[in-house]
Amino acid sequence: MADIPERELRTMNHLMYMEYYTGGNAGIFMKMKRLLHSYQSPYQRIDIFEHPDFGMVFSLDGITMMTEVDEFMYHEMLVHVPLFMHPDPKKVLIIGGGDGGSLREVLRHPSVEEAILCEIDPYVIDAARKYLPTSVKFDDPRAKIVNENGAEYIKQFNDYFDAIIIDSTDPTAGEGGHLFTKEFYQNCYKALREDGVFSAETEDPFYDKGWVAIAYNRISSVFPITKLYMGFMTTYPSGMWSYTYASKKYHPVDDYDPERAKPFEGELKYYNPEVHRASFALPNFVKEIIGEK
Amino acid sequence: MADIPERELRTMNHLMYMEYYTGGNAGIFMKMKRLLHSYQSPYQRIDIFEHPDFGMVFSLDGITMMTEVDEFMYHEMLVHVPLFMHPDPKKVLIIGGGDGGSLREVLRHPSVEEAILCEIDPYVIDAARKYLPTSVKFDDPRAKIVNENGAEYIKQFNDYFDAIIIDSTDPTAGEGGHLFTKEFYQNCYKALREDGVFSAETEDPFYDKGWVAIAYNRISSVFPITKLYMGFMTTYPSGMWSYTYASKKYHPVDDYDPERAKPFEGELKYYNPEVHRASFALPNFVKEIIGEK
Amino acid sequence: MADIPERELRTMNHLMYMEYYTGGNAGIFMKMKRLLHSYQSPYQRIDIFEHPDFGMVFSLDGITMMTEVDEFMYHEMLVHVPLFMHPDPKKVLIIGGGDGGSLREVLRHPSVEEAILCEIDPYVIDAARKYLPTSVKFDDPRAKIVNENGAEYIKQFNDYFDAIIIDSTDPTAGEGGHLFTKEFYQNCYKALREDGVFSAETEDPFYDKGWVAIAYNRISSVFPITKLYMGFMTTYPSGMWSYTYASKKYHPVDDYDPERAKPFEGELKYYNPEVHRASFALPNFVKEIIGEK
Amino acid sequence: MADIPERELRTMNHLMYMEYYTGGNAGIFMKMKRLLHSYQSPYQRIDIFEHPDFGMVFSLDGITMMTEVDEFMYHEMLVHVPLFMHPDPKKVLIIGGGDGGSLREVLRHPSVEEAILCEIDPYVIDAARKYLPTSVKFDDPRAKIVNENGAEYIKQFNDYFDAIIIDSTDPTAGEGGHLFTKEFYQNCYKALREDGVFSAETEDPFYDKGWVAIAYNRISSVFPITKLYMGFMTTYPSGMWSYTYASKKYHPVDDYDPERAKPFEGELKYYNPEVHRASFALPNFVKEIIGEK
Repeated sequence: MADIPERELRTMNHLMYMEYYTGGNAGIFMKMKRLLHSYQSPYQRIDIFEHPDFGMVFSLDGITMMTEVDEFMYHEMLVHVPLFMHPDPKKVLIIGGGDGGSLREVLRHPSVEEAILCEIDPYVIDAARKYLPTSVKFDDPRAKIVNENGAEYIKQFNDYFDAIIIDSTDPTAGEGGHLFTKEFYQNCYKALREDGVFSAETEDPFYDKGWVAIAYNRISSVFPITKLYMGFMTTYPSGMWSYTYASKKYHPVDDYDPERAKPFEGELKYYNPEVHRASFALPNFVKEIIGEK
Repeated sequence: MADIPERELRTMNHLMYMEYYTGGNAGIFMKMKRLLHSYQSPYQRIDIFEHPDFGMVFSLDGITMMTEVDEFMYHEMLVHVPLFMHPDPKKVLIIGGGDGGSLREVLRHPSVEEAILCEIDPYVIDAARKYLPTSVKFDDPRAKIVNENGAEYIKQFNDYFDAIIIDSTDPTAGEGGHLFTKEFYQNCYKALREDGVFSAETEDPFYDKGWVAIAYNRISSVFPITKLYMGFMTTYPSGMWSYTYASKKYHPVDDYDPERAKPFEGELKYYNPEVHRASFALPNFVKEIIGEK
Repeated sequence: MADIPERELRTMNHLMYMEYYTGGNAGIFMKMKRLLHSYQSPYQRIDIFEHPDFGMVFSLDGITMMTEVDEFMYHEMLVHVPLFMHPDPKKVLIIGGGDGGSLREVLRHPSVEEAILCEIDPYVIDAARKYLPTSVKFDDPRAKIVNENGAEYIKQFNDYFDAIIIDSTDPTAGEGGHLFTKEFYQNCYKALREDGVFSAETEDPFYDKGWVAIAYNRISSVFPITKLYMGFMTTYPSGMWSYTYASKKYHPVDDYDPERAKPFEGELKYYNPEVHRASFALPNFVKEIIGEK
Repeated sequence: MADIPERELRTMNHLMYMEYYTGGNAGIFMKMKRLLHSYQSPYQRIDIFEHPDFGMVFSLDGITMMTEVDEFMYHEMLVHVPLFMHPDPKKVLIIGGGDGGSLREVLRHPSVEEAILCEIDPYVIDAARKYLPTSVKFDDPRAKIVNENGAEYIKQFNDYFDAIIIDSTDPTAGEGGHLFTKEFYQNCYKALREDGVFSAETEDPFYDKGWVAIAYNRISSVFPITKLYMGFMTTYPSGMWSYTYASKKYHPVDDYDPERAKPFEGELKYYNPEVHRASFALPNFVKEIIGEK
């Protein structure tokens, strides 16, 4: 059947994607238009779907990593909050992030000279390259893609990076757990320069409040300045996502200079200086989860 | 990603197939391993899935046409009940049946010299050839595949076929309705020789009892001998499937000669002479649906 | 809110019943109108739903026991096949069957003087009495309801019953397993008179073929005459249900006298003499499962 | 069955709640423990479920109105943002809000002397009273419950209320649409005193961005000061909820006095002064939806 003329697939009721959230008693369902790609890598099951409203949906072991229409919320908040805190980020390491969305955001910063994407699973990279628009910067000359275990890879660096961004899967899925240990955060500290900045996705405080607390407290035990911040992420569990910012030097609100974001006006879909500051205002129940006050 | 080594995909919770039965208040769900093929033909949406227990699952517009593990129940009952009633079936027409299962069963009969498979949708044929083991006889020299509307195609024949088998989709789906009209049955009558035999799938008497009655009564108004018969079909709605046998000459129980099935012993998985006779014993509520007594 | 005027509840999309079949990779879903009753008894979770098409739906531990519209298929086949084999059944024991459907069918036989319903769970009896129309004969003077473990209760009887009917839940659910042991079948044999008849529901040969084989072979090792028979059961897994008939004396086809069923004409919705005989005609793959030829 | 001892119901896989979000291609599912109450009122279907993690779940026409564990996010943001803007709110009107959560939050403010809850459907009030802990203040002497159409009820008031809070259902569900018209907002304006404050839930900007824009722009055409603000709402569609604040006099950030919230410290679970200010920082794509720059 070499030359099938393409027709728009009708979305029907029969192809239902169901993601069970932590605890197993709730989740999201999506009526899919098609399943474009499925592959069992040595690390995980990789799937790429097309959804009539969400566009491409990328899933690892049945957990949604991103959808085309709302990934910007997550990637902008994970990347720009730390990067705008640094006066001149040149060397950036992204651990995880195989879909490429974080890399794309990092490379918006013209100061960046070297952006290493350390994604353990080469099959994620291949799938992203083929199906996901987020992979747009994989071949940028400043980008370098490394397929190694981030927890091991980081060990070789000392006082090298201006920014490290942890764009991991869930601590309980695949190889995600390695990226939630105190030892790993210590190695990130060591790999950062003295004015380096750090961010990590640290799960949602509704279904996974235990992990929010663990990740925040471990990072906080390593870095002198550690702050949880939050953003909407509409197709992730609960829609309420937490990130943790850390630095040896810069306080993410007190030291924030909104002028740096000026040249990005009109380019970003989520992040702006007011959102930057607002994201550190935590609801009382979230403060309680991380033991703040 | 040219040379991916194949690994067995893990079936997870996320890929759920849901078929709503007539009425929309119940249905079957299947956790799929993968979706191998999706295509929107001019007639319908064609999907081929792999299920961890059922093997290949073939679906049109979200309605299950067959699964690899139980299609034999349906195809054997649809084909062998009429074919064993004929002393020497040479020319056989199958209308619908694009998966090839009915053709495979027809060609088990050594007397058959010409088996025409008239499937309206060439994309079903292509998909079956590529993915469905039922297509095993598409290239048999006695087989001829024609992509035409069966209701039109039949009109050109007079006194030609020894057997006609209607292996249609639902009357309410795609082009299935054309194959449930009185005019169509009259054309079948005309195309059959004087000792010709006929069978049609006529839906299930639980979710679709209206169609069982309509199809049976229309066929009965055309053929002197018309009998409803039944068989299990485990992944079809209700698991209880009806077929209608018709003939100008042979009564399906009184004229049945079990000796004809002897050479098939050990080859068939569902049909045997006792099952042939038993399939015409109808539960009281089914008799009532078709107005028998 | 003492005096709410009753309005017909609109069935919407939100109340979905999902029964996973053995293996966990497929099942049935039903859009429910309401959930009338839920109770956690010492043995199991008991639920009674109302479905817009199926009427009352009775479920134990999430496994459908019966729906109002098709329970007759199961209860008639389980009860009348053995009872019409006995010339004069007076004393009948039903083990399980707390919904009352088997009892109702047993009491259609005017010869019956004593029908004991031994249902382990009194909360099933209470729920059935309140919600299920199948419980219509609970207060019949010939009926006696006993809430005991059937596997223990049977032990006290010797040469007493004319018929024993095992209307159990799945061997893997709740207390069902006790009713699938060889010792239990031996006690049934002992409790039956020399011309006693026996039937048991023995699961479906599609999702649960292992249990069909085990149950059939264990019964067969105890009774001189043992035959598997089958019937449609549209809301049970696969729609294809197996029962096992056993007797010390009567062969269910050779000794069958269709005259006995004459007075029931017009009363039963599934069973008739042709269906009785037909139900013993097994598809080849079912014969293979039970090791018959 | 008068005296059933209560046992904890086991949550199984069979009782699945599915809410389809706007567009019908995605939604949330919840495994429920039980359905406590279902009633078809003249306005809508009312259901109250118990979920193993979320506690009571209240649903109208299959759309989740609240769950016990996260309703505080919504009710605190809807109520306290406007109420802390007013120096001395005495008379407050809540339209909708039949679960009682908004009333509970309003009555935390000691200045409030009269809080009218205008809920069109008395059966919602009855169900809330019986099953929902949010109804805790229904019998407070300062509370007055009125069962009328809010869009009509508001018309009689002139220069009366210090705060009006619109806690409606979706504009497309039940009677929700009446509460999204320009005429209605004009009547709210008229009913407010010259320093009155107003808030309305205005849907989510992911699945329902059209309604966010419509509601915001209509309110904005009536009030001199109108600001969209946002908060997490973990079991609502997308988890990202919008509210619209309006006032004739007070700007919600410039005129905000955080001292007023001091006495509430330790009492609220979501709202605090930083969250108040942060909630008005809108992501770029939300600004675009409402036509802001």
